[in-house]
Amino acid sequence: MKDYIIHHEWKIIEEGFEPSFNRISESVFSIGNGKMGQRANFEEKYTGDTLNGTYVAGIYYPDKTRVGWWKNGYPEYFAKIINSTNWIGIHVKINGEELDLAKVKILSFTRELDMQHGLLSRRFVTEMKNGNQIEVCSHRFVSMAASEIGAVRYSIKALNFSGKIQIKPFLDGDVVNEDSNYDEKFWVEIARAVGGQEGYLTLETLKTQFRLCTGMWFHATKNGEKTNSEIINSDREKYVEAIQKIDVSAGDEIVVEKLTATVSSLYYDKEILVEKAQEAIELASGAGYDLLFESHKNYWLKKWETSDIKIEGDVAAQQGIRFNIFQLNQTYTGEDERMNIGPKGFTGEKYGGVTYWDTEAYCFPFFLSTAPQKVSRSLLVYRHKHLQRAIENAEKLGFSGGAALYPMVTINGEECHNEWEITFEEVHRNGAIAYAVYNYVNYTGDKDYLAPYGFEVLLGISRFWSLRVNWSEAKQKYVMLGVTGPNEYENNVNNNFHTNYIAVWTLKYTLEVIEYLKKEHPYLFEELVRKWKFNELQETARWHHIIENMYFARDPKNKIYLQQDGFLDKALIPADELPEDQRPINQNWSWDRILRSPYIKQADTLQSFFLFQEDFSLGELKRHFDFYEPLTVHESSLSPCVHSILAAKIGYENKAYEMYLRTARLDLDDYNNDTEDGLHITSMGGTWMSFVMGLGGMRVVNGKLTFRPFIPENWKSYSFRIDFRGAHLEVIMQHDKFTVVNHSTVDVMVTIWEEERKIAGNDKQETIVHEKQSA
Amino acid sequence: MKDYIIHHEWKIIEEGFEPSFNRISESVFSIGNGKMGQRANFEEKYTGDTLNGTYVAGIYYPDKTRVGWWKNGYPEYFAKIINSTNWIGIHVKINGEELDLAKVKILSFTRELDMQHGLLSRRFVTEMKNGNQIEVCSHRFVSMAASEIGAVRYSIKALNFSGKIQIKPFLDGDVVNEDSNYDEKFWVEIARAVGGQEGYLTLETLKTQFRLCTGMWFHATKNGEKTNSEIINSDREKYVEAIQKIDVSAGDEIVVEKLTATVSSLYYDKEILVEKAQEAIELASGAGYDLLFESHKNYWLKKWETSDIKIEGDVAAQQGIRFNIFQLNQTYTGEDERMNIGPKGFTGEKYGGVTYWDTEAYCFPFFLSTAPQKVSRSLLVYRHKHLQRAIENAEKLGFSGGAALYPMVTINGEECHNEWEITFEEVHRNGAIAYAVYNYVNYTGDKDYLAPYGFEVLLGISRFWSLRVNWSEAKQKYVMLGVTGPNEYENNVNNNFHTNYIAVWTLKYTLEVIEYLKKEHPYLFEELVRKWKFNELQETARWHHIIENMYFARDPKNKIYLQQDGFLDKALIPADELPEDQRPINQNWSWDRILRSPYIKQADTLQSFFLFQEDFSLGELKRHFDFYEPLTVHESSLSPCVHSILAAKIGYENKAYEMYLRTARLDLDDYNNDTEDGLHITSMGGTWMSFVMGLGGMRVVNGKLTFRPFIPENWKSYSFRIDFRGAHLEVIMQHDKFTVVNHSTVDVMVTIWEEERKIAGNDKQETIVHEKQSA
Repeated sequence: MKDYIIHHEWKIIEEGFEPSFNRISESVFSIGNGKMGQRANFEEKYTGDTLNGTYVAGIYYPDKTRVGWWKNGYPEYFAKIINSTNWIGIHVKINGEELDLAKVKILSFTRELDMQHGLLSRRFVTEMKNGNQIEVCSHRFVSMAASEIGAVRYSIKALNFSGKIQIKPFLDGDVVNEDSNYDEKFWVEIARAVGGQEGYLTLETLKTQFRLCTGMWFHATKNGEKTNSEIINSDREKYVEAIQKIDVSAGDEIVVEKLTATVSSLYYDKEILVEKAQEAIELASGAGYDLLFESHKNYWLKKWETSDIKIEGDVAAQQGIRFNIFQLNQTYTGEDERMNIGPKGFTGEKYGGVTYWDTEAYCFPFFLSTAPQKVSRSLLVYRHKHLQRAIENAEKLGFSGGAALYPMVTINGEECHNEWEITFEEVHRNGAIAYAVYNYVNYTGDKDYLAPYGFEVLLGISRFWSLRVNWSEAKQKYVMLGVTGPNEYENNVNNNFHTNYIAVWTLKYTLEVIEYLKKEHPYLFEELVRKWKFNELQETARWHHIIENMYFARDPKNKIYLQQDGFLDKALIPADELPEDQRPINQNWSWDRILRSPYIKQADTLQSFFLFQEDFSLGELKRHFDFYEPLTVHESSLSPCVHSILAAKIGYENKAYEMYLRTARLDLDDYNNDTEDGLHITSMGGTWMSFVMGLGGMRVVNGKLTFRPFIPENWKSYSFRIDFRGAHLEVIMQHDKFTVVNHSTVDVMVTIWEEERKIAGNDKQETIVHEKQSA
Repeated sequence: MKDYIIHHEWKIIEEGFEPSFNRISESVFSIGNGKMGQRANFEEKYTGDTLNGTYVAGIYYPDKTRVGWWKNGYPEYFAKIINSTNWIGIHVKINGEELDLAKVKILSFTRELDMQHGLLSRRFVTEMKNGNQIEVCSHRFVSMAASEIGAVRYSIKALNFSGKIQIKPFLDGDVVNEDSNYDEKFWVEIARAVGGQEGYLTLETLKTQFRLCTGMWFHATKNGEKTNSEIINSDREKYVEAIQKIDVSAGDEIVVEKLTATVSSLYYDKEILVEKAQEAIELASGAGYDLLFESHKNYWLKKWETSDIKIEGDVAAQQGIRFNIFQLNQTYTGEDERMNIGPKGFTGEKYGGVTYWDTEAYCFPFFLSTAPQKVSRSLLVYRHKHLQRAIENAEKLGFSGGAALYPMVTINGEECHNEWEITFEEVHRNGAIAYAVYNYVNYTGDKDYLAPYGFEVLLGISRFWSLRVNWSEAKQKYVMLGVTGPNEYENNVNNNFHTNYIAVWTLKYTLEVIEYLKKEHPYLFEELVRKWKFNELQETARWHHIIENMYFARDPKNKIYLQQDGFLDKALIPADELPEDQRPINQNWSWDRILRSPYIKQADTLQSFFLFQEDFSLGELKRHFDFYEPLTVHESSLSPCVHSILAAKIGYENKAYEMYLRTARLDLDDYNNDTEDGLHITSMGGTWMSFVMGLGGMRVVNGKLTFRPFIPENWKSYSFRIDFRGAHLEVIMQHDKFTVVNHSTVDVMVTIWEEERKIAGNDKQETIVHEKQSA
């Protein structure tokens, strides 16, 4: 855990430069716009420890799978979003001496991320070895309004000298990934050009042949006046630069504006890429930095209007939650259905920028509630586009007849992961994808999505479940053998409760959807039956039989469902009785010891209690929470949120708040000592959930919005914003009063505690909070 | 499956050269002497497909562990016996043209391995591109009598030309392993020297710094006369050579004798290695090829006297069983307790030449019955020497108090394997190592081994078992969670029958040994108690409690023990109902499908029924065999032998013979299409077991030798040889008569069927065989 980020409601601030924290700060201060992203690397040269990261969504390299012992079914490659052309670079020489924060004396240093406006800035004063002092101020943003544009404003003030300041804006495509099998480079140059204020670099990835053209344009002013000094260009393979030397006297300030465009073959014909980059550069340079920033800033201001959470009385908490919202919004915008959300977003190489079930399980609700409907819909369509590949994936594992198994990890629908106990066995992910369809329809009411998209995905997944179970003669029940549940501290278990439960739920929901389709879209349904060779009678008969006869292991004594067969054979010692020096167990215990222990990495049985809350009584929930929570070590960043939400529901408000706090500032305070690898983007979705569903107690039950809020004692108030079926609501919780403000013209029904209220357009509803109302 | 090896009682013969079989033949025709071994690579240059293999026992390189997903507890390296200096090479030019069987016309070709005398030979006639025809005859052996010596006699006859034959004997240490992470080379040169007929190369391994000096001496004759032509030496890094050009006329025959010595830092100070090699070369060259071969041959003739198996009426079977015995004997001689048996012996790179539980489970009985007592004792001492490392290995996995877990794969006692489900969970190997101690004492009567060697190993293993189980409150029994049994088609299961059984057995046997020590070696025992901080009262109390309360899953309906918890939940479809195109399942099914299937790779529950035969009635055995055999797919070369032995015991003679045949010619006929990687050396021990214990029905029960033999219908007779407690017996089975001949002066009691007989020294006993006697 670190504690060097200064608390501020809207800003992330680092005062003073600590090189050993640099990789962490590079992650924390990352910026992006859903299409591309950039770690907070320096514009000027830096020879200290750094992880360069410039990522473009959808541009990946299929690196050869690395494995000790091959198992049948493993994929040949794992995809990774790779480091691409560095467009931020502006190297600086002061009277011939290179500016490099690893080598000069730093007199002051501030790094700041203005989340309200999406602006990264740095301000520092240094003394060069030659005694020259300068003050540097850099601003940078990746435009939300014009997604191809990155912009830098970089000013250098000569404090105590006269002489020459040399600036060198450049584009560098000769980049590497730290995570590469054999230090390979993934890019080849297609073309380069540089002249005057402009430069272009066109590169193509090996194997996948994605082509990327990056353009730059810059201009420099001195004390606000255009400079006329000569620009000298040069270039080499995968690299172009422009050098300008400017005479300065003490007090002079040079300002460099560097505007860049990154265009790719994802959107344009390869042949016209350079042309497109030139067009973008022309537009951008015409508009200039200020105007570009204006439209970017406005985008963010609008974004905050629909997604902000405010906390009064706790600046650290306020900063934490806004940071999460900021990062989620700059990671995914839903404009391109081919994109998804990597666990680290654009902030590091780890997990390769590819998609896990994290998206559906942890991020989906945030976008569902705070973004236009098409954004969450895009996330669903992403999976629908991959349906054929999911069917092929299931075939590879021996399932036929249109059964679909979505990959554990993917970028283009093909499986990229290679640990048998995860890749082949962590099949509950299929359920999460089915649940997202339900979640979307339940929240938005957009039933049309079911015909045909939603239905097709549900059919493939239901077919998978119906083949993945087998009839146990011994139990006279269906069983599901050899799975890994969400709790990855168990592998290859039988009858994982959550997996069995979500399988049965998928079958039920698919049957419901079939009834709906038959009634509302009979002709389309007939077409789908033919397209998918759906033998309704026979297939649904089996589904019904499975629904009625699925096995769930139970402990009759404690009246709880068991996480899996044999769970009670473990030595059930609460986690807090473990010696401190053995925690976290994943750093101190060998894998077999973890597996045979009762310790739970993240909500597993309780994951079902979270997703299917209506199916269980409060008493049941409490029994299960009381049994499983003491065994849960929360060694996944994705764990505390679910526990927080359930604790809130039970009325364990302290536990709920404790669990919320564990996620809220995870990266800002580098809790897990791994923020240097990148931010835990998908876990930020979980934090949002634990706020809105935990503290706010928000649910959508049968399409109806309900709240059971509580407020931590040390906060004065909080509020959050949500979109719901055309209405835009501001939900405000104070200690004595709960208010829902309807900022739209659409009337909406909400249930507050057990009471149903209508909130008319542009009206609000206040509810007095009684003692322990939520308990 | 291939069928190109010509059947012969004593020889392995290949007629005609088929390049695509070359790697297979290189494996099959391998020779060795327990200290070093050599694939059947050619002496002359060969540019076709080949796997060069020259291995020296105990000389390994710790290659970096390669893994996709790291788990806590994995070892940093995996050791491999590496390819070392090629000493066989003699390159040949005929009138300037290189002899290379990949490039010349082959008029005839025979490769032959004379197993009776341990001699590899080749004879071929070729026509060079220049029209010159030659007849080549090569003989090669690795001396059993002088373990440092390798010898080649290579003759070239000019058939139709006059001119020059150039011979170039050389030593080449610039070798690689195909199985190398990054095509690294593992050797560095320390010194080289060459002059006249002699050459020396001293190399050292990277990291492990084993030093090896290889010396060569050669001389050439023409038509039996010494040649006087000049010898030209040259050398480069890791390479020395001598070239001699000899004038020939049609009909002339050149004979080259090349004698080599390989000495290593395992036996001598590094500083005197060259000297030692020179001494060995001096002795060898003084003796000459013929004399060296004479003593080698005599060693083999003697070896066969104690270990031969004869079969009348089936040449293929005769060849098969002798091949197995030959290979076992040339892989391990028991002279050096630091050596052990790799699954491929010296015949290939696969499995790195390191030690698995195969040694104890499959090879140990062969050496116990056919070799001097010290040979099997050496195998035990190997493990005793590694006890401290096994304790450290257990500590790494969280076990304290002197618990020992022997590694899954090792060369020096450290774990080298890195698959969590095997490395950490296939703990039954510990039981196999304990059982070997019992097996040795039971067979030889050498109880002295128990004090202290045997006891120390048993104590460490018993302590491991007592910590590896845990008390299940739910079952009110001890359970063992998260293991992998011998059947590796199940991973991370609970209460594997064999593992639980052998754990309890180890505890019982250790208690027995403690009683023996207290009675017979009380002072030594007191010393051991202190040395091992053995709290006898407390520790043995727990052992007793475990022995009395261990859980074994049972099927009450079929009255059988279950392989593991939940086994009956599987879809129990017999393996022969699987479509042919899905077999073997390990090539056609994904790993998860294999895991949740009921199919058994190799004997698992039945492994206990084999090892602990006295514990189960024939009825119990039959029930278990009838249940598990139909589910067993025998996709391990180590599987059929145990089933063969048990089938024989039940009276399923056809099944026993069928299972025996599956292993007997595994490599000669390349059943599994993998002989090119090397021979299945450890499985050959299993074949021997299935012959002697299956067909021969031999057991040692409470130290007493018993037989219940049967003979396959199509055989006329068979006989095998065994050493037993000072006696040397020849056991002969004919259809009407069973004879035990005592070739020693020691009287011995044997039980034939149920009848106990005394066979006096140099006497024999005949028993009439009745119809279905064995049933």
